[in-house]
Amino acid sequence: MSDAQTRELLVEQLRAFYGREWVSGTGGGICGPSEDGNLLVAPTGVHKERVQPEDLFVIAVADTSVVRPPTDDSLRPSECSHIFTLVARERGVRSVVHTHALSAVLAADLATDTDHIVISDLEMLKGIRGLTNQDRHLLPVIDNTARERELVAAMADALADPRFDRAWGVLVRDHGCYIWGADVWEAKRHTEVYHYLFNALVARHDHGYRPPAIHTSPEEGTE
Amino acid sequence: MSDAQTRELLVEQLRAFYGREWVSGTGGGICGPSEDGNLLVAPTGVHKERVQPEDLFVIAVADTSVVRPPTDDSLRPSECSHIFTLVARERGVRSVVHTHALSAVLAADLATDTDHIVISDLEMLKGIRGLTNQDRHLLPVIDNTARERELVAAMADALADPRFDRAWGVLVRDHGCYIWGADVWEAKRHTEVYHYLFNALVARHDHGYRPPAIHTSPEEGTE
Amino acid sequence: MSDAQTRELLVEQLRAFYGREWVSGTGGGICGPSEDGNLLVAPTGVHKERVQPEDLFVIAVADTSVVRPPTDDSLRPSECSHIFTLVARERGVRSVVHTHALSAVLAADLATDTDHIVISDLEMLKGIRGLTNQDRHLLPVIDNTARERELVAAMADALADPRFDRAWGVLVRDHGCYIWGADVWEAKRHTEVYHYLFNALVARHDHGYRPPAIHTSPEEGTE
Amino acid sequence: MSDAQTRELLVEQLRAFYGREWVSGTGGGICGPSEDGNLLVAPTGVHKERVQPEDLFVIAVADTSVVRPPTDDSLRPSECSHIFTLVARERGVRSVVHTHALSAVLAADLATDTDHIVISDLEMLKGIRGLTNQDRHLLPVIDNTARERELVAAMADALADPRFDRAWGVLVRDHGCYIWGADVWEAKRHTEVYHYLFNALVARHDHGYRPPAIHTSPEEGTE
Repeated sequence: MSDAQTRELLVEQLRAFYGREWVSGTGGGICGPSEDGNLLVAPTGVHKERVQPEDLFVIAVADTSVVRPPTDDSLRPSECSHIFTLVARERGVRSVVHTHALSAVLAADLATDTDHIVISDLEMLKGIRGLTNQDRHLLPVIDNTARERELVAAMADALADPRFDRAWGVLVRDHGCYIWGADVWEAKRHTEVYHYLFNALVARHDHGYRPPAIHTSPEEGTE
Repeated sequence: MSDAQTRELLVEQLRAFYGREWVSGTGGGICGPSEDGNLLVAPTGVHKERVQPEDLFVIAVADTSVVRPPTDDSLRPSECSHIFTLVARERGVRSVVHTHALSAVLAADLATDTDHIVISDLEMLKGIRGLTNQDRHLLPVIDNTARERELVAAMADALADPRFDRAWGVLVRDHGCYIWGADVWEAKRHTEVYHYLFNALVARHDHGYRPPAIHTSPEEGTE
Repeated sequence: MSDAQTRELLVEQLRAFYGREWVSGTGGGICGPSEDGNLLVAPTGVHKERVQPEDLFVIAVADTSVVRPPTDDSLRPSECSHIFTLVARERGVRSVVHTHALSAVLAADLATDTDHIVISDLEMLKGIRGLTNQDRHLLPVIDNTARERELVAAMADALADPRFDRAWGVLVRDHGCYIWGADVWEAKRHTEVYHYLFNALVARHDHGYRPPAIHTSPEEGTE
Repeated sequence: MSDAQTRELLVEQLRAFYGREWVSGTGGGICGPSEDGNLLVAPTGVHKERVQPEDLFVIAVADTSVVRPPTDDSLRPSECSHIFTLVARERGVRSVVHTHALSAVLAADLATDTDHIVISDLEMLKGIRGLTNQDRHLLPVIDNTARERELVAAMADALADPRFDRAWGVLVRDHGCYIWGADVWEAKRHTEVYHYLFNALVARHDHGYRPPAIHTSPEEGTE
């Protein structure tokens, strides 16, 4: 996919996410692969549904430096850039989504006295690469910090934790979530699926639903 | 209706279902009648709102074999194909919808210790062919399986069960639902109506609503 | 407004109502004034978001007879026609909306052991002609019947009941509501406002909200 | 920004707000800066999603008098005009939004026996100028009045109250909210953010969520 196509696709995703109230009020962000192996990222502090293809930055995966800025020099790269590059390095992916969806905040609220949520008994788990609908899927929940950048340390810990090896996202308490995929299409799918799972978890919690029993998790996960 | 028109209509329905969050994250599917008496089905593993008319397969009702693949040979027919053809054979219909709507999952959750839900006291029952608003309508709930194909046996049992003779759908626990109609328009109507009924059932359950009394079900059902 | 303009406006409203899930699965309906003093009504049993301007019937306010059918002779006038003309005669209005909104069903559920709901303590009451935000507004709730036409008797009783003189709508238990206005624009406004009020009533009931005290209702109602 | 651009932007916002059901049934309103230092305001009593750029009034910040009416002389300026100019004078801003969002009404319901709500433990607080996600943010709640104009006195008191110095909005019980920003873009962002916060507060209240502890509020607030 050319950079021009990726730029179009990224701003289209931002508009779609905005329509679902996942990136309201200038919140949230997205990145995708540039042809030179770096990341195309949206600017910070702008209305995300208004971002234009030419507004994106190219930043280096290695050190988050700006490789190519947009021509509009009033723009600054996303506050999420350091997390985006961390995830890219640690997981070898090139597309990361950050949302402020209320469903993510409410799902993280369920993790009282623990550092993760457990998702199980839902077919939609199959929509996450490597998972089956028999899995008990652990998704890390980290505490919020005063500045987005300060999330990096806790995020790095979560990514290094073997309990979360199969997670394609991290919840940030009181804040939202980061979700990723190998490319923009997979990140889009994972974003839709995890937000569905957040809604399901919260709704079932409200209804007092208790899953019947703990499943054994077969190793042969497929999408 | 020509195959070209049916293809257009099917992809239009997928886009509409996606807009309602019934087929998020590449989940869900649809089929409709081809002119030669077989089924036009969407491919698997793709973003359903992006399916193009030329992406559809023609599969045989009799044995689910591929009669005509799309030109894009990276595509594979829907995982639901075996269920689509089962329903087509057993109920003589030509359009089946599969959704992952959260409302379907939550409605199935209401069937604790039983294999069906009961829908009653709702005018919208009339939107299902053969039903009146006086009916106590039984909709089967089957358990989920590791693979979509493995649902076939339980689905066949549900279709053969005389208690569910008047059902135009099946709920799959933790997963979603299958809903059908004679043609795409009827399947669309039934899909909208059943999802409305799922929402109503769950909302009334949340509110502690209890229907006043059991109605006798007159035989003269009309739409 | 010419009949051509009214036809356009009515089908536009149906599409908008469909988008809000008020007329799903072919349910619901609408009528508006024709230039000759009769009613333009949508056909029955069709997907309401698909109705075209030329699909509408002109029916007589006096006796509900068809004055001018659409050219497509497979169409039949709305099942609601007898209620539409009843309301037109009794209230002197020319536009009536019928929805199956779940919010209307859930609001009617709140009327246990009584024949009406009470709406108060909401600014949006001002959106109904003649009401102030100080009013305790009574909206009648009638029981559903096997056929839409059989609602006419109970509807006539509600319209004749002096307690409901200021009501611009009627709730039908398990079914939905009828809402009217002098013209299509007022019916649209009343429809939006009453559905807002239904949602507010149900949400406040869920939250255990109790209005502080009963207001005295000043006579000088304004919009 | 030219007046023509501001007019376009204002009516675009009204359509967007209507799509979110914040300004249904002719309710709600918006104003923005005119080039001559006054306010462009929408007319009253009209369907807000239908307002055209040429329908806007220019009113004087100083005394709310009409500086330039629209050519359609059947229109009258928004009922909110006196509140819009009050906020403009007291806070030095030029764009104010008024919504009837149900989420605002339900958030105000939480303020039993008090004159404000407290918002904390949410990243989205950063979307309000001057706030951090460590703040306990106080938003005033005033009582509704029979006429919109009569809100002015209570609104003035709230604006003068030092506890609410950092508030960019006011909740009106049973009614909705007023939210402002320096310009239309900031008012849009604040409107999206506060409505998100209202939803979050109500949802967390429903779930029995209690924030862990009271944070100290650092003075170095940034957006």
